[in-house]
Amino acid sequence: MQITILAGGIGGAKFLRGVRAAYPDDLTAIVNTGDDVTLHGLRICPDLDSVMYALGDGADDERGWGRKGESWRIKDELASYGAEPSWFGLGDLDIATHLVRTRMLDAGYSLTDVTAALCERWQPGVRLLPMTDDRCETHVVVDLDGSRRAIHFQEWWIKHRAALPARSFVQVGVDDALPAAGVLEAITTADVVLIAPSNPVVSIGTILGVPGIREAILTTPAPVVGLSPIVGNAPVRGMADSCLPAIGVEVSAEGVGRHYGSRKEGGLLDSWLIHDTDAASVPGVTVRAVPLLMTDDSATAAMVRAALDVAR
Amino acid sequence: MQITILAGGIGGAKFLRGVRAAYPDDLTAIVNTGDDVTLHGLRICPDLDSVMYALGDGADDERGWGRKGESWRIKDELASYGAEPSWFGLGDLDIATHLVRTRMLDAGYSLTDVTAALCERWQPGVRLLPMTDDRCETHVVVDLDGSRRAIHFQEWWIKHRAALPARSFVQVGVDDALPAAGVLEAITTADVVLIAPSNPVVSIGTILGVPGIREAILTTPAPVVGLSPIVGNAPVRGMADSCLPAIGVEVSAEGVGRHYGSRKEGGLLDSWLIHDTDAASVPGVTVRAVPLLMTDDSATAAMVRAALDVAR
Repeated sequence: MQITILAGGIGGAKFLRGVRAAYPDDLTAIVNTGDDVTLHGLRICPDLDSVMYALGDGADDERGWGRKGESWRIKDELASYGAEPSWFGLGDLDIATHLVRTRMLDAGYSLTDVTAALCERWQPGVRLLPMTDDRCETHVVVDLDGSRRAIHFQEWWIKHRAALPARSFVQVGVDDALPAAGVLEAITTADVVLIAPSNPVVSIGTILGVPGIREAILTTPAPVVGLSPIVGNAPVRGMADSCLPAIGVEVSAEGVGRHYGSRKEGGLLDSWLIHDTDAASVPGVTVRAVPLLMTDDSATAAMVRAALDVAR
Repeated sequence: MQITILAGGIGGAKFLRGVRAAYPDDLTAIVNTGDDVTLHGLRICPDLDSVMYALGDGADDERGWGRKGESWRIKDELASYGAEPSWFGLGDLDIATHLVRTRMLDAGYSLTDVTAALCERWQPGVRLLPMTDDRCETHVVVDLDGSRRAIHFQEWWIKHRAALPARSFVQVGVDDALPAAGVLEAITTADVVLIAPSNPVVSIGTILGVPGIREAILTTPAPVVGLSPIVGNAPVRGMADSCLPAIGVEVSAEGVGRHYGSRKEGGLLDSWLIHDTDAASVPGVTVRAVPLLMTDDSATAAMVRAALDVAR
């Protein structure tokens, strides 16, 4: 079975491990690259790397991000040189990934090719596609130091811990971005499309912003099933509650489901899975309540089987 | 007193520590950059870094190169990705230096500016000037895999451990290279110019290859004193014995002294210091025999004082 998943980083990684456990078939993940950033001359793709490390058994599951067995010697050295920014957690092992990526990009390879090359080592068992090969970075409009301005998503997310109220989100470069090779086909030829329980604004929303991707989801013959990242009135992980209000969406499974909307009415969803203690009504969408906590790979696999059940 | 020193890497670093110990005055080192190389996207300046780390108390004196407390995690990671070359010993702490340098060069700063910025941290007590801000890398002509070709100095030096016979040395880019800002003035306004006991071919010879530097030494009013890197018939350190035959110079204090030659006859030297167990006759040059082993900073300082004595 050919399954295509739209996914962000940490939550997307956990979800993809469950998908692989449930259906180790023909899996393609279309991964958000709006979080990407160039720091210290290194091209960093946090979501692609989170997914790659997690699927390749290289992630630190306890810390919840980055590499297992990571160290931070270079970060300390950069600080000793006074090299800014110092707020980004750049691990030594992680830097090796960025060095390989940056060198290949500088040599003219696309991010898709680079990702495939890095995955030669990690063997994630899922084809990982960046949403686009083009630079298209999310910025956040905030009030800072007395003026309204746009800062890079990473600065907002990590330096300010998403505590500065977001006025809006801007994908710099999105108008000229093209879906990466294979992205549209993965959606239109899939047997089922899953929207991972990732951040609806800065992960899924960013992927959908790339011209052509939303249209592919609207028109694919495959059923499209989304899984709510909100349980109760809070995200299962991450800081979606800092993002949803900025786009006028209620922090609830129903709020996100309605934001995504029914495919019958130009939205994304045929079905919407919510946590079993939640309730939601989304016009034109089949809603089903099942456990959605991703406590381990088998719990996540059960979520995925439920998503496939509702898709049939 | 204003002292200007021409120097290579490891031997130059030891020598400069002795100069600083003897005369902590107005010291400028003009450092070879012909060993520089770009690997894994990082701009690496081995000689400048060796000198900077040694003078900044950051060098591993036991290993004889690189940083104290160094680790090699990124090197292993790069190998796990199959990223070549794997033969260059790229330490984690060292990589931080290269990241700062590469980023600044990419931003348009000159190597001179970058070196000054890095030295803000290390406080070497000696003004370190690259011989040139231009890319000018030494290549070695060798017979390899059945054909004659030029490989980068680092490939010859480290991968092949200088064991492939060198047919000749070529400074790629030297014709268009300019002395870095301050280099010529440091030579022409000095009270004394010292030629460190560095490799006469791929360190001192490379510096002298930059158009204008040899002429400045020929015409400076300052006395010029060289110190032999050869003791007996072998270099004190390094692999000068693999380099000198390629340019037809005998591996001896006399051979190198004659190769440098007298300033009266268009050469470099007014005086030439050789080790106290050696003998040398260099026409037109005052030769003096003193201990030249650089066993510690005070022994090296004594060498430097002897050099200044003979200069007077």
